Parts: sequence; structure tokens; C-alpha cells
Amino acid sequence: MKPGIPKGTRDFSPLEMMKRNFIFDTIRNVYQRYGYQQIETPTMENLSTLEGKYGEEGDKLLFRILNSGINFSELKPQTSDLKHSDIAEKGLRYDLTVPFARYVVMHQNEITFPFKRFQIQPVWRADRPQKGRYREFYQCDADVIGSTSLLNEVELIQIIDEVFSALGIKTTIKINNRKLLLALAHHLNIGDNDFIEFVTLIDKIDKVGRDQVLFEITNRFKTPDTEWRNLFQVLHSSPFPHNITGKLEILKEMFANSDIGKKGIEEVEEIVQHWINNDPELISNFKSASLELDLNLARGLNYYTGTIIEVKVADTRSTFTSSICGGGRYDDLTGIFGLPNVSGVGISFGADRIYDVLEEMNAFPDLTGASTKIMFVNFGKDEAMHCLKLLKQLREAGINSELFPDQAKMKKQMGYADDKKIPFVALIGSEEMKSGEITIKNMVTGEQSKVKMDELMIVLKGTK
Amino acid sequence: MKPGIPKGTRDFSPLEMMKRNFIFDTIRNVYQRYGYQQIETPTMENLSTLEGKYGEEGDKLLFRILNSGINFSELKPQTSDLKHSDIAEKGLRYDLTVPFARYVVMHQNEITFPFKRFQIQPVWRADRPQKGRYREFYQCDADVIGSTSLLNEVELIQIIDEVFSALGIKTTIKINNRKLLLALAHHLNIGDNDFIEFVTLIDKIDKVGRDQVLFEITNRFKTPDTEWRNLFQVLHSSPFPHNITGKLEILKEMFANSDIGKKGIEEVEEIVQHWINNDPELISNFKSASLELDLNLARGLNYYTGTIIEVKVADTRSTFTSSICGGGRYDDLTGIFGLPNVSGVGISFGADRIYDVLEEMNAFPDLTGASTKIMFVNFGKDEAMHCLKLLKQLREAGINSELFPDQAKMKKQMGYADDKKIPFVALIGSEEMKSGEITIKNMVTGEQSKVKMDELMIVLKGTK
Repeated sequence: MKPGIPKGTRDFSPLEMMKRNFIFDTIRNVYQRYGYQQIETPTMENLSTLEGKYGEEGDKLLFRILNSGINFSELKPQTSDLKHSDIAEKGLRYDLTVPFARYVVMHQNEITFPFKRFQIQPVWRADRPQKGRYREFYQCDADVIGSTSLLNEVELIQIIDEVFSALGIKTTIKINNRKLLLALAHHLNIGDNDFIEFVTLIDKIDKVGRDQVLFEITNRFKTPDTEWRNLFQVLHSSPFPHNITGKLEILKEMFANSDIGKKGIEEVEEIVQHWINNDPELISNFKSASLELDLNLARGLNYYTGTIIEVKVADTRSTFTSSICGGGRYDDLTGIFGLPNVSGVGISFGADRIYDVLEEMNAFPDLTGASTKIMFVNFGKDEAMHCLKLLKQLREAGINSELFPDQAKMKKQMGYADDKKIPFVALIGSEEMKSGEITIKNMVTGEQSKVKMDELMIVLKGTK
Repeated sequence: MKPGIPKGTRDFSPLEMMKRNFIFDTIRNVYQRYGYQQIETPTMENLSTLEGKYGEEGDKLLFRILNSGINFSELKPQTSDLKHSDIAEKGLRYDLTVPFARYVVMHQNEITFPFKRFQIQPVWRADRPQKGRYREFYQCDADVIGSTSLLNEVELIQIIDEVFSALGIKTTIKINNRKLLLALAHHLNIGDNDFIEFVTLIDKIDKVGRDQVLFEITNRFKTPDTEWRNLFQVLHSSPFPHNITGKLEILKEMFANSDIGKKGIEEVEEIVQHWINNDPELISNFKSASLELDLNLARGLNYYTGTIIEVKVADTRSTFTSSICGGGRYDDLTGIFGLPNVSGVGISFGADRIYDVLEEMNAFPDLTGASTKIMFVNFGKDEAMHCLKLLKQLREAGINSELFPDQAKMKKQMGYADDKKIPFVALIGSEEMKSGEITIKNMVTGEQSKVKMDELMIVLKGTK
């Protein structure tokens, strides 16, 4: 029997784990530096919590868990009459946002608002597996709930810049505002009932191009010809992607009579003021990101009501076009669970995509920090006993170290150290046992030398 | 609609996460100090990987995942004819050992043996939930596979001592050897076919007491009266729990003619020699554990073939009686997946039980290290802008800090800092903006003082 794993899932080797942990640790550290606190929610949620929250398509992609102790003879007699709900009450977490909303409602009396939480956990979707898309993948979310201040948006944008700077990925942070999209719809005489359809069209620009979307919008909603030029300009993200002030001027003219439009402009202005000039009184420029106001940006999720954010790789070493981080403000996410009118805003890093970007750019740093620094060769029982004493001292000094467990051939033992990329090997034979010295071999240079224990400690502590 | 979570599962609040991470970090650090490398396997495994590996009872406790895109009308017409396998091909991970064996077989060509791996992930069992028993809980495993050396056992016992010393829990590490149990069975004329039944009886001593088990054994297997005294002695764990040498003497006499018995004694002796005397040439005594040879110890899992290990709390502050860590040697775990004759040995820490022990003993250390060190009060737009600049400097110095996002009432802002146990609050009004000073309030002592930015850094860096 040849074992396998379910399609769309993955094993992670020690090397892959080091790289993944580098991403998770980086994100966690930045979140904590900004005062976010970690929570975790169960892998399984009641289907009543999950269903209907991700659209019809999402419901189809839920992994459902068979009720335990199910008795098939007690079900409806015909299998064709069965429904999912007859045999499954629980499902696997589909994202971190809905479980978080459920958490906030359930624990509202223990939480001090505004609640700044982060959460790094896997989610599951029964999507068709393909390159870069998995059925089990990690999300790394931060949300502030219970505060309407736009300083939260400012902070989340700072966090995005900090995380990607620490990871060494140049990015473009695109922002938009649902209120601007709503005003745009009104301006084009598109009614509220058609807004979702309009947003869905806008959302396709990345895939099918602006011209096609413009054609479909004007066709479907009978856009007056006079609006073409404006629409063309605001939906244009290049060649002046960073000219936020210029875009806002066009919008101000378009939305002169729209309250919602003016509110959207005001929100964008309040956020971007921190970056659009170099006033030393401001929180200053980005470390590595650039900011763009992109009216094309819609983001499919219907619960967004204000700012929306999406991050793209802007690095010549990468061919990656899909977004690696996204988020936005929602005014009533907890309403579905019975706690209305609590505004929140959040972002989510896609750790698996970030991994793929760093892999493609060959940009992971040296991550051997937590690996073994020295391996003692096993020459037999007495020598091994001697080595155990030395290992005890090294480990007490916090140095990761090991003894090859078997008295195997030298070639095998050295090969093991080599494969594990252990920088030093210690050789202790009868001579060293008498003299109290340790022969060490530098596995990179091949150099061999005799040292005392205190010298060895100094060498190893200086080894990355 | 009032939201809930599936029974036997839990949400973890920020405070609980800090405590849980303390346990996970401690275990991970010790594993790494001994040269173990982390891997992860998918949450879902094929049921063909899981079924039949945990006994009949285990199969019942598997969580099965409904096949996605299932078409009920294409199934057998009568629901009473349905089997699990008709509608579910995948299940949730039940432990970390079987997926690890599957991993080793699948990746045998990429792995350098001996393979020292650790793995910290949740597992799921559809057990009846009760106090201290959950349907989703974490295991923290370390195994060495591809080495028969008993130095691995020695090392794992050292690891157990180190982990529990770092966690501040006094323990008794009980060891036994399956070969001794096998020799005992032979000695009592119990055939190999009845061995599992014999082991299952021995395993009950903790629950029903030695006398009851002795009665059942003699009754079921017609033990000769002349064996009573010996049996009574070796199955006695008190009043001389640490007298390993004495117990080995009794066993040597009993198993004088048993090859398997002599092998078992030899293995135990080779392991315990490191601790049973104070010879400075040995790796020395335990930090906080004590070692016990306990012939009562059986451990239910059938794949063990040599050493078995179980750890109990030995702390007067705790009433905990179930084991908090366990493990053993298995000679052919990967055989079921087509890779025979690869010996391994491993241990597993039960993080959730360890959590409950530390909670009961009120023994978690101060864990606020990753929390916010200072909160800036929000007095309005201009003051907030000023604070953002200072926050940027603090965060660049690695100090976790935050600004209250809304211009709320003083009482609310101070209450937030208080609830989040933030040690310092900064108050910056128009006066401080002019002078460049910062008024800080120590939230523990209530003291208030004016400091410069560089002084503040020094204060905060010295704050735990």
C-alpha cells in the first residue's frame, strides 16, 4: 500500500517549516508591536455559523464533517431525499473573519473595546486545487473592532509596510473606499439593487481589462456618453498611479452633489494625508511600499462599507500578480450574530502566497538560527558518555547541539551533519578524553582545530 | 440567533493564548536544543491512512469529512445501505504518530536518517467531552526514527526533565519495557495470543487498583500460587518507588531463563545507569524529575516494542493524576505503510493537560512580555498626529506600543489600558507638544512624571 495525502493539502519539511515560521514570526511580531493580541478559534464551527456568510459559491466550498455516531438506518429512507444538514452539523473554518465576528458576539462581556486582535490559523476550502491554490492554507488576520477612527486604517497600512519591509518584498498598497464606488454607481444612475452587480463588474478589471469592463458597464447600465471621459480617468490606474491628489480632484468634481461621495473623499483624504507629502510632522514615508488610490479596486466581499485595501507585489524579481494581502472596513459584521452597529476594520496576509513570492525571488534570508550548531561524532560507548557531559553544558548555555546516536561509519555521521547543514562537528576520541580538549571541524571551510570548552562556547555563540 | 461552538471545542482569549504559547515555546525550544527539526502534516488525512491504526474504538472516534460535491441521488438508493466509506474519504488527524509514519514513508528519499523530528499540532477525537477532555487538543511530539541506540531514550528522558523544569512542574518519569511485560507473560504461562489482553489488564492498575488486577490476572490466566509474591512485588510501585536496582534484582531472578526478559533488563539498565548514582562522570541528576521503574506501566498502544515512558505530576500543589507526557519505542511503525524494519522512539507532551496543571497550581509566570508596554492617550487630532511620530520611534526600537484610536473620555481610555494590563500610559497635551516632553503615568504605582523620549525608551526597555 502506497500512502498519499488528500489533494490540495501539503506536508511541510523542516526546511519549509523554517521558511514558513519566518513569515509567521515576522507578521506576529509586527502585530504585537502595534498592540494587537492573539486569539484562536476552533477548527470546527457549527454550520449555522458558516453557512450563508460567503455567498452561494462559498457554501459549496465548505468542508462538512459527518456527525459522529451517525445511524444510517435512522435517516430518511431514500438517499436521494438526503440533504447535507441531515448528516453534517459542523464544518471546517472557511476564513478567520466570520469566526472572529462569532467570537466577539459570544465574548462581548469579557472584551474591552476597541478590541485589537490578531489570529494566525489555517482555513479550508474545497476549491479546485491548482498551482498556488490549496485546500488548506493559512490566514494571518488583524482587526480592530469597536472603533470608527480612521487612525486604525492608517495603522493597518503602516503594518502592511512594516511586514513587507521585514520580509524584503516591495509592494504597492492599493486603497479605495466602498462609498466612492457607491457614489460612482449613483452618478451613473445605477440603483442600490444593482450595486453588487456593478461592484462585481469593477472587480473583473484585473482579469479582463478596463476596456472590456467599461464596455459591459455602459452596455448594462446605459451610461450616458458624457460620463465616459470621467469614468475612463478614474478607473485608470496608470500611468500616474501615485497621483492621488489628481484623482481626488476629478472625484470632487464628479461627486460635488453626492453626500456619500463627499464622505468617501474625506475618508480617503484623512488617511492618505499621512503619506502624500514629506512634512516631517507627519508619520513620514513608507519603508518600502508605495500607496495608490485605485478606483478599480472593489473586493468581492459584501460586508465592506468603507476603506478597502489590497496589496500587490511591486518587485521586478517576481511575476506574481494576485494580491498577497487585503482588507477593509465593515460597519456591521457582528450584526448577523445579534450584535449590530459595531464597526471594525481589518487586514489579512496570505502566508502561502507570500511564501511562493519569496521562493520565486529566492529572497528568504539565512534561517538556520534555530538549527543545530554542533554535532558530536559517536565513536562508541565511552566516548558517547563523555560527549553527553559536554552536550549538557552546551545546552544549558542555550546552544542547540546533538550527539549522533549510533556508532556508525564516519562517512554516514559526517553525511548526516552535512545534510542537516550543521556548521561544526566535534570529534572526541580517547586522546581528547584525556586532554579535555575538543577537536572541531568547520564544515564550511573544512578546517580542523583543537579547542577548550570555553573557547568552543565562544565560537558557537558567534555562529548564526 | 445566539451563536455557539461545537461541544468539546474552545475559543482561546488573549490571556489564554499567552499561557498556551508559553507552553508551546518552552517545548519547542527544548526540542530544538536537542537537534529536533519541525515538520507539519495536513489536518485532513485519507481515511485509508487513519483507519485500523487506533483499534476499533479509535475508528469510531474519527471525525470524517463529507466528500465535497457529493450527489445524493447517485448513492445507493437506501440510506440504510450506506456506509461511511460511501460518503467520506478523508478524516481529521487523530494523533501525530500515524501521520508521521506516513510522512516518513512518503518522503523516505528526501530524509537523512536518523530523522529527529518534532511536531506541534492539534488532533481531533469524537470522544465524549468532559472536564479536561476535549475534542480538539494539541499534541507536541518528538521522535527519532532510524536509530536503535538507547541514547535516544536517554535524551528523551532528559528532554522531559528539561521541559517540566522550565515549566516549573515537579514530575515522576515512569519507565518500563514491553520486553519485560512479555517476559512476565511468558513467566506466567500466558501465550502470545493473550498478551494484548494481559497488557490491557495491567494497564487498568491505575484505575481499579493492583489487588483487583492481580485477582483478575490470576483468575483469568490460572497463575500458580507460588508466583504470587514475586508478581505482587514487581507490580508494586510503592513504598520504594525509586529503588530501581532492587526491582531489577527481583526481575533478574524471575527472568534468569528468559532471553527476552534478560534483553529487557539490559535495556532498562543501560538507560537508568545515567541517573541511578551520582558519579560525576555521568550526565548527572535530574533538574526536577525523579525516575521510577514501574512494571505496572503498560500503555495501551500496541505498536510499542521496547521502552515505554509515562510522566505524572509529583507536585503537592496539584491533584492531577492522569499522565501529562508519554511515549516509547516502536520497532515497526512504518511497516504498515510499506517501509518495514525502521525502529523509532518518541514522546508526546499533552499541552492541554499541562495547561490545566499550571492553572490549578497557579504557576504560570508573568507572561506580559509580548504585550503593549505603553498606551498614548488620544486627546484629539493634532495630539494624535504628534503621538504617531513618537510611536514610530518606539516601535522601531522594538517596543510594543499603541495609541488609543478614538478621542474618547479619559475614563474609558484609562480603563482600556487597565484591562489590557498596560504598565505605562503617556499623556501628551498642547503643553507637552510644545516642550517635547512626555507625561507618563505608571499604572501600577499611579506615579506621574515628565520625561524626554530617550529617558522613556530606557524606562520601557527595562519593563518586563
